[in-house]
Amino acid sequence: MSVTAPKGFAAAGVHAGIRREKKDLAVVRTLGSGTGAAMWTQNRVQAAPVVVSKRHLALTEPQAVVINSGVANAATGAAGEAAAIATAEHAAKLLGLQPEQVIVLSTGVIGAPLPVDLVCAGLDTVQLSEEGGLDAAEAILTTDTKTKTAVAHGPGFVVGGMAKGSGMIHPNLATMLAVVTTDYPLDNAIEFLRPAVDASFNSISVDGECSTNDAVVLLSSNAADVERNDEAFMATLKQVCADLSQQIVADGEGATLVAEIEVTGAASQREAKAIAQRIATSPLVKTALFGRDANWGRVLMAAGSAPYNGGYAQLEPDKITLAYNGTAVLIAGAPQNVEPPVEGGVCTIALDLGLGDGAASYLTSDLSYDYVRINADYRT
Amino acid sequence: MSVTAPKGFAAAGVHAGIRREKKDLAVVRTLGSGTGAAMWTQNRVQAAPVVVSKRHLALTEPQAVVINSGVANAATGAAGEAAAIATAEHAAKLLGLQPEQVIVLSTGVIGAPLPVDLVCAGLDTVQLSEEGGLDAAEAILTTDTKTKTAVAHGPGFVVGGMAKGSGMIHPNLATMLAVVTTDYPLDNAIEFLRPAVDASFNSISVDGECSTNDAVVLLSSNAADVERNDEAFMATLKQVCADLSQQIVADGEGATLVAEIEVTGAASQREAKAIAQRIATSPLVKTALFGRDANWGRVLMAAGSAPYNGGYAQLEPDKITLAYNGTAVLIAGAPQNVEPPVEGGVCTIALDLGLGDGAASYLTSDLSYDYVRINADYRT
Repeated sequence: MSVTAPKGFAAAGVHAGIRREKKDLAVVRTLGSGTGAAMWTQNRVQAAPVVVSKRHLALTEPQAVVINSGVANAATGAAGEAAAIATAEHAAKLLGLQPEQVIVLSTGVIGAPLPVDLVCAGLDTVQLSEEGGLDAAEAILTTDTKTKTAVAHGPGFVVGGMAKGSGMIHPNLATMLAVVTTDYPLDNAIEFLRPAVDASFNSISVDGECSTNDAVVLLSSNAADVERNDEAFMATLKQVCADLSQQIVADGEGATLVAEIEVTGAASQREAKAIAQRIATSPLVKTALFGRDANWGRVLMAAGSAPYNGGYAQLEPDKITLAYNGTAVLIAGAPQNVEPPVEGGVCTIALDLGLGDGAASYLTSDLSYDYVRINADYRT
Repeated sequence: MSVTAPKGFAAAGVHAGIRREKKDLAVVRTLGSGTGAAMWTQNRVQAAPVVVSKRHLALTEPQAVVINSGVANAATGAAGEAAAIATAEHAAKLLGLQPEQVIVLSTGVIGAPLPVDLVCAGLDTVQLSEEGGLDAAEAILTTDTKTKTAVAHGPGFVVGGMAKGSGMIHPNLATMLAVVTTDYPLDNAIEFLRPAVDASFNSISVDGECSTNDAVVLLSSNAADVERNDEAFMATLKQVCADLSQQIVADGEGATLVAEIEVTGAASQREAKAIAQRIATSPLVKTALFGRDANWGRVLMAAGSAPYNGGYAQLEPDKITLAYNGTAVLIAGAPQNVEPPVEGGVCTIALDLGLGDGAASYLTSDLSYDYVRINADYRT
């Protein structure tokens, strides 16, 4: 059911003709009075819908999200911004909203103009329904090989979500979008969204790239008649975000394996994350994983060169303990001369730095021939 | 002639038995009273020879460099440090030097113990000669496919050099070592070495990894009877360093193309370098180059997410001009709808940010199937 699992949401996914045959336009709308928040790509090159939607969110609470796939509407200049605005205006008219209550998102090829006539004609055909969640989740995909949805139930409320990302067969596709919905009443959605995203969408990597269109939107219909239990909501939201994140990595370009990098004992939380991220984006670590090789020297090399505060994160080689799938290869800096098996589709790499309380985890995929093939193919 | 091209140097390369059949031990020595400096990997995990040699350099001027290939002597704990010290002591005795006048370097597999008996027995067989430069250059290679040497002549002096790097067929090999020699008299070698390395060895990337053993050593024999001309020496040194750097990238793992990333108009010098480096290490840019695809959206994406001061380097999309091999694809943010050819083994990507005077260039290779194959192969 994805985004329509919570009470008070309707959604749809249609074929507007931006892509050949496949659904390419999704709408998600609150049925009551919605509240919400979003987090955006930090890339200095931001797509037109990102620029327009940030402006909208600064003015009012969002009530609807319109997403097209096929064209990212990025690096498209003033015409691109006009197209994003026109999309929001047309959707607002149809939905009985103000344009600034509509968030627009795009995903697809960078540099190509958004066919705004097709988008508006597509919007005219949209019939929102409380069963439309799966169609919406399908319509936001580009070359993902799987639909990505998640639902979790808290006491008296529901959190649902959909995401797309990381299966870029045609190059230049912007990578990650996610919409997470709930009926749990929210008056400051960003306070929940930020920690949930930091622990999920901001802790995954397929290739270390940060797209021009990345966005995560949280929308509440405020429809659940439930006592406040922020802790339970936070936990449920994190569960849905983590579930969607895991699906993105597992469907990563060319991925044959999902690796969970667990860093503990770092001098600080931020250093733990810097080290986990460096390991998760190291081509040498990722190619070794593709070769199912517990090549721990590479993990040390990567950990020792994690950018932090203009230098590298703290690390003392003789305090490091490192384990693959629970088998220690290094204990307090001493090699154990064991060769842990790396098999199947999952690998856990646990690195304890023995310095402090900083901890972080990161999901990543391996680097395979298919990653190169997918991304070296000439645009067609 | 490599390191023995300048007056006042002798060198040798022998087979000590660390590697099967191939030469694996090199010695370079000044014949007079040498001066010198070195720059080291910034990785927090540093190999034993790096730790020991930094200590030596802090005490006195270097007179000799001993390099073994085959074993990196990294992540080897106290035993590794003892082995590096024993190597320096044995070499010093044979060469009539103090141990602290000897720099020791290692390159090869991380985590394996250095067979110090073989190294010392190998040192016993060394016969230094003024024609030994090529043998030395050969002995420092691991799985490089080519010997890397360079010589340049200034007014009354010579700069020579050898390097190894970037052809890691067996995983876990530490990447880059270089020894640059001159007869130009130097009393503060580091003042010349640092800018030369920043513009060369610190401006190349094969896969963005920073090894535990990387080192560049500059040694002068002070043997040239020449008037001071620091400017000419600086230029000649830069030429040799740039030449060796280019050879390393061209022999990079799986490389089919060398790309020169030229960033101009950045808000500052450091931001220019951050952006050039981000483009040079982007898997999406590098796979597109392997596909000979001028996929400029990826260059924008990478440029917009160049880590700098805890955020991203400054960039305004509508001021960017971008050209491939001299053909502009984007002028002041406006796409030109041209498809520049990317052919052959070289590609220049010129990005002007239109913000300030910051400029930097970076050499990189593409990301090919062979990079994955080479690095995913199980250690044998």
